[in-house]
Amino acid sequence: MITRIDGRSPSQMRPIRIIPNFVKYSTGNVLIEYGETKVLCCVTVEDVIPPFLKGSSPAQGWLTAEYSMLPASSDKRIRRERNNVSGRTQEIQRLIGRALRGVVDLRLCPEITFMIDCDVIQADGGTRTAAITGAYIALKMAVDRLLRHGRLKKNPIKDGVAAVSVGMIDGSLLVDLNYHEDSRADLDMNVILTQSGQILEIQGTGEKASFAKDDVMNIMAAAESALKPVFELQLAALEGQIVEG
Amino acid sequence: MITRIDGRSPSQMRPIRIIPNFVKYSTGNVLIEYGETKVLCCVTVEDVIPPFLKGSSPAQGWLTAEYSMLPASSDKRIRRERNNVSGRTQEIQRLIGRALRGVVDLRLCPEITFMIDCDVIQADGGTRTAAITGAYIALKMAVDRLLRHGRLKKNPIKDGVAAVSVGMIDGSLLVDLNYHEDSRADLDMNVILTQSGQILEIQGTGEKASFAKDDVMNIMAAAESALKPVFELQLAALEGQIVEG
Amino acid sequence: MITRIDGRSPSQMRPIRIIPNFVKYSTGNVLIEYGETKVLCCVTVEDVIPPFLKGSSPAQGWLTAEYSMLPASSDKRIRRERNNVSGRTQEIQRLIGRALRGVVDLRLCPEITFMIDCDVIQADGGTRTAAITGAYIALKMAVDRLLRHGRLKKNPIKDGVAAVSVGMIDGSLLVDLNYHEDSRADLDMNVILTQSGQILEIQGTGEKASFAKDDVMNIMAAAESALKPVFELQLAALEGQIVEG
Amino acid sequence: MITRIDGRSPSQMRPIRIIPNFVKYSTGNVLIEYGETKVLCCVTVEDVIPPFLKGSSPAQGWLTAEYSMLPASSDKRIRRERNNVSGRTQEIQRLIGRALRGVVDLRLCPEITFMIDCDVIQADGGTRTAAITGAYIALKMAVDRLLRHGRLKKNPIKDGVAAVSVGMIDGSLLVDLNYHEDSRADLDMNVILTQSGQILEIQGTGEKASFAKDDVMNIMAAAESALKPVFELQLAALEGQIVEG
Amino acid sequence: MITRIDGRSPSQMRPIRIIPNFVKYSTGNVLIEYGETKVLCCVTVEDVIPPFLKGSSPAQGWLTAEYSMLPASSDKRIRRERNNVSGRTQEIQRLIGRALRGVVDLRLCPEITFMIDCDVIQADGGTRTAAITGAYIALKMAVDRLLRHGRLKKNPIKDGVAAVSVGMIDGSLLVDLNYHEDSRADLDMNVILTQSGQILEIQGTGEKASFAKDDVMNIMAAAESALKPVFELQLAALEGQIVEG
Amino acid sequence: MITRIDGRSPSQMRPIRIIPNFVKYSTGNVLIEYGETKVLCCVTVEDVIPPFLKGSSPAQGWLTAEYSMLPASSDKRIRRERNNVSGRTQEIQRLIGRALRGVVDLRLCPEITFMIDCDVIQADGGTRTAAITGAYIALKMAVDRLLRHGRLKKNPIKDGVAAVSVGMIDGSLLVDLNYHEDSRADLDMNVILTQSGQILEIQGTGEKASFAKDDVMNIMAAAESALKPVFELQLAALEGQIVEG
Repeated sequence: MITRIDGRSPSQMRPIRIIPNFVKYSTGNVLIEYGETKVLCCVTVEDVIPPFLKGSSPAQGWLTAEYSMLPASSDKRIRRERNNVSGRTQEIQRLIGRALRGVVDLRLCPEITFMIDCDVIQADGGTRTAAITGAYIALKMAVDRLLRHGRLKKNPIKDGVAAVSVGMIDGSLLVDLNYHEDSRADLDMNVILTQSGQILEIQGTGEKASFAKDDVMNIMAAAESALKPVFELQLAALEGQIVEG
Repeated sequence: MITRIDGRSPSQMRPIRIIPNFVKYSTGNVLIEYGETKVLCCVTVEDVIPPFLKGSSPAQGWLTAEYSMLPASSDKRIRRERNNVSGRTQEIQRLIGRALRGVVDLRLCPEITFMIDCDVIQADGGTRTAAITGAYIALKMAVDRLLRHGRLKKNPIKDGVAAVSVGMIDGSLLVDLNYHEDSRADLDMNVILTQSGQILEIQGTGEKASFAKDDVMNIMAAAESALKPVFELQLAALEGQIVEG
Repeated sequence: MITRIDGRSPSQMRPIRIIPNFVKYSTGNVLIEYGETKVLCCVTVEDVIPPFLKGSSPAQGWLTAEYSMLPASSDKRIRRERNNVSGRTQEIQRLIGRALRGVVDLRLCPEITFMIDCDVIQADGGTRTAAITGAYIALKMAVDRLLRHGRLKKNPIKDGVAAVSVGMIDGSLLVDLNYHEDSRADLDMNVILTQSGQILEIQGTGEKASFAKDDVMNIMAAAESALKPVFELQLAALEGQIVEG
Repeated sequence: MITRIDGRSPSQMRPIRIIPNFVKYSTGNVLIEYGETKVLCCVTVEDVIPPFLKGSSPAQGWLTAEYSMLPASSDKRIRRERNNVSGRTQEIQRLIGRALRGVVDLRLCPEITFMIDCDVIQADGGTRTAAITGAYIALKMAVDRLLRHGRLKKNPIKDGVAAVSVGMIDGSLLVDLNYHEDSRADLDMNVILTQSGQILEIQGTGEKASFAKDDVMNIMAAAESALKPVFELQLAALEGQIVEG
Repeated sequence: MITRIDGRSPSQMRPIRIIPNFVKYSTGNVLIEYGETKVLCCVTVEDVIPPFLKGSSPAQGWLTAEYSMLPASSDKRIRRERNNVSGRTQEIQRLIGRALRGVVDLRLCPEITFMIDCDVIQADGGTRTAAITGAYIALKMAVDRLLRHGRLKKNPIKDGVAAVSVGMIDGSLLVDLNYHEDSRADLDMNVILTQSGQILEIQGTGEKASFAKDDVMNIMAAAESALKPVFELQLAALEGQIVEG
Repeated sequence: MITRIDGRSPSQMRPIRIIPNFVKYSTGNVLIEYGETKVLCCVTVEDVIPPFLKGSSPAQGWLTAEYSMLPASSDKRIRRERNNVSGRTQEIQRLIGRALRGVVDLRLCPEITFMIDCDVIQADGGTRTAAITGAYIALKMAVDRLLRHGRLKKNPIKDGVAAVSVGMIDGSLLVDLNYHEDSRADLDMNVILTQSGQILEIQGTGEKASFAKDDVMNIMAAAESALKPVFELQLAALEGQIVEG
């Protein structure tokens, strides 16, 4: 069995910390940490919907996401994307938006856009999975506030969402890869699950080698088992206190 | 069992047509058709490598892809991406590049960049999977030519590549969705396989509903079975004649 | 007398082929070939007019064109114009739009924009003249369809349009230059005529030497004579079948 | 015969004024006026050549032009082209560069780029023709200075250059159209001639109606006759004093 | 005491020349010269206000400025800002706009935007201060015209505006630095005053050394004294004739 | 005397908190808080210098800054500057860079660029002054590390730097305005001082009213007195622990 540099077992997540209300303005927000990876997830509620939804019947709202890395979040400085947005950034922010739209009934949110901003403060692998797990909490906080204020009549959120990466190094499955592991992995799969155990999205690439059907099954099982305590932490964080696990 | 508008069985690909050497200049190229979807795949060989590979040891070449839709390729005119490239386009072209790099040993191609252009002439669903299947043939044609001319010493291609989409509509699995089916699907997965039966990439999204682990297994099996004849057609097209199947 | 590499006489066009309805979606479209030069010309009809025409009296429609070369259309790969559009591209697409507006009574097309897309599949000299000749056919096909559906009340097209380049090499006039001839020409003139024999636009540059008034007269005569059969082919293509000549 | 609002005969240029050395820094520059149209033409000499000329054999220099209108140069404020350059601007600056390259032997100017800036201070029709006439003088001034300083060994300028527009309104030919005339013209042709009477470029568009071969001949004759005194003024301005005519 | 290369005393402005109505179209305009620095300042009046003011109560107009240097205005050619606007340009045009808004009661100008264009024809230091001094005159000319035509009911201008730079070289204060002095200065401060002696903006940077509170006082006094005759010249220029001083 | 909403006296700073090493990668970094305003200041050291410094004699390094606000840092969501950078952002980041270059001897840092990133996590007025105060600490931390590792031979930092805003509301001077105060201020001045009491930059605008020379003196005195304890906190933070004051 492979030994991980930080002493984790292959199926073990890094320590998770969730700080709700890290900033004071956005309707719902958390700072989430997967080990040394730290992502600020903020949900702003806007009273407009994009042009392509205007006049749609039945009326519906929208949810979209943006993702960015702070310049000093990484070992090598990341240039600000001031002229064009890289393919990687686009891919990740589309993934975050799609995942959360998967559990929201947008017909219950007419004339509302949920704008989700995921800004990476520090990056050590798994920024997109941490972002999705954190964005769900921020979204739930925002929705709860809108329900309290009567801006929403009915809870549009159908299920919880969390995500984890699973990789294979030298034939061993490892969950929640850090940067060092990620750069050595032969196979890297991101798995996004609902709290009820369904799959929202899987995305797997054989970075250095192709893989087999059985690998897929094992990865799915590993992800499901790793995300169980994460769903618990999300619920605890929604109580409003800092949680760690 | 669901009835498909074009009379296909759920596990049946659309008619495929491959026209090698559709244009005269690029080193390898085909026009590939998955039913009414038509994609021109061209490989240009360039004698430069990107800056991030300069001085790498061992020396290696590069392979990258660009994807675009002609304005009149779709029912509704597609605006040219002259100011910024959409997230969808970036996602697709990154996927194509990743898939083909997965079967090429770039250390056997020093100082060479394979530039793959996939231009959609007509779109009816599955443009990215048709593009990958066609791009593999174009790449193989280009590599064969470089081998003949001594520009490459050894064949860097380790395996064949083909791709297909699999969707779920009202609980039924369907392979190779056309546009009409695609827009109704609850789940849409793109599967990229090697000729030897390994997985290069899977990407599945529950567009309208989440899905279960068993669905993933069934999808993988359907894809594998659907792509068998496609690999045959690729080999036939490499003989240089138009093939249909 | 100069001998042309492809055996043509100086006043002879390259073989022309016109494939109507090359793609299935646009309202009118053809693939046109001037020898090895192949351009896909598609007309999309849009129910909006540009801001500067809003509220004009009398009401009028608009017609505009875009031109692009596929990356693999040329000997040396053409970079996609994703950040800025080159001066050459702008010049050509403005020329195409101007030429066709010259024969259309836009007051008969209120609230309609004809969007003409000319995409070069393969380039061997004369792409702009082939594009104009093909665009006219596509436009006529679109207009005929709008008339049949009652979207237009009256035919707004006043005359036919076709175009040809005429060059001078070592003192000899040659019509319809291919790429090889074009790069050697001392003088290059593009002539756009109406079917009734009038001039819509002439544009001539002494690439390597200046020229005289008499040259202009000879060029006009050569163009007029060369385009006669082209107008015939256009009419034949409008019958809906592939034509060659 | 048509009566012109400013009392000119159809074949008469507007009053021309040329102010050499209008600014103090550029190597050669003039402010040129065609009536109320005023263009500042400046030539900067740079010790670099564009990448595509590096290593060319024989070595050669380059000449290129940029054109712009000041925001307040026109009746309606012109937006600055800070995000993208319009097709019209590109067309004009390419025309200016082409015209002047037509009389310069760039092989006599190795490692030199002549950068020509034409900035319209006030626009009343004919800015591109005034720009070309002025740019020639500025270029000659710059070349003379380089010859005096030994930076050029031999005069690379082979001929003089001047330009004029000719239009047709209600069947009458008019030279050097002002803005009011230009917007009414059925046909608008720009003619660029060398001092020795050769044609460098003609560009004619039937804005509102097509035209005939005979029109072209008459236009050429009118341009030739109108530009005779302009060539005289250019020579006089090269003496360094303000000239009017 | 420091000796200035052009013979001025430390507290002496360069010769100023103001040419009203340098161009014919804009509502108010001047060419202003501070020695060899020449800036064309034009005010265009537009019947629109920016989106952020729409529906503001009480209704108000807007005033904004753009600044640019002609390519040949400087010793070394200035690249046109066609892709992005430099920080320096943004800083200067924001300064000009802020200064003039400081003396205009925009509530007296409902539905009006004053667009101020400052284009540097020739640069020899102090382009931003010359621009502000000139822009005030152009603005006053435009306002006077609007008052005459009844487009404004009441004069919205509350005070006059002029600006000057003050620098310190080797411990000596110098007003109105030219380029040569500017590049040697240890401290450079731009002072914008109203005619009534109040401060609109000060902006001072220790380019090569920090400075003391007493320096600030001396600079303010020097600016106040230097601008006295400038306010006189502005008034004279408003009579419509060229003034020098 | 004016009463401040948060109970401060007019001359009192908001509570300041400085968290050194907030992120783990950059060479020097702090999170600095001026009340509810929170800015992350990170210094990355790069082994390249900008082109305009290459070959300068004596050799010298460079220091530059970038500033950005996170989307959720403000009451109203801030759009990411992905297409163009606003004038405000440019103005602020140029100010930060200038201020710190004012105390660094760049000739002691050959072949080094200090890249300073100031990212606003939460904004409540005074982000630019907090950024400068924080950036100085981060820079000193980075320099100390380079000295320890021998990458720098001699300390290039000549003095400490801190900044504060001073405003005037209804005739009263207030230091360190929060957002609410800032939007009501008649006059807003940013003062950047060195620890030794010299001025690096002052920048003052009469937002709603002009001001007098005496105001400037009072502002300078208020700034000097307010920044005294700030310089103490900077020194304490350099010991590596979180400090508050």
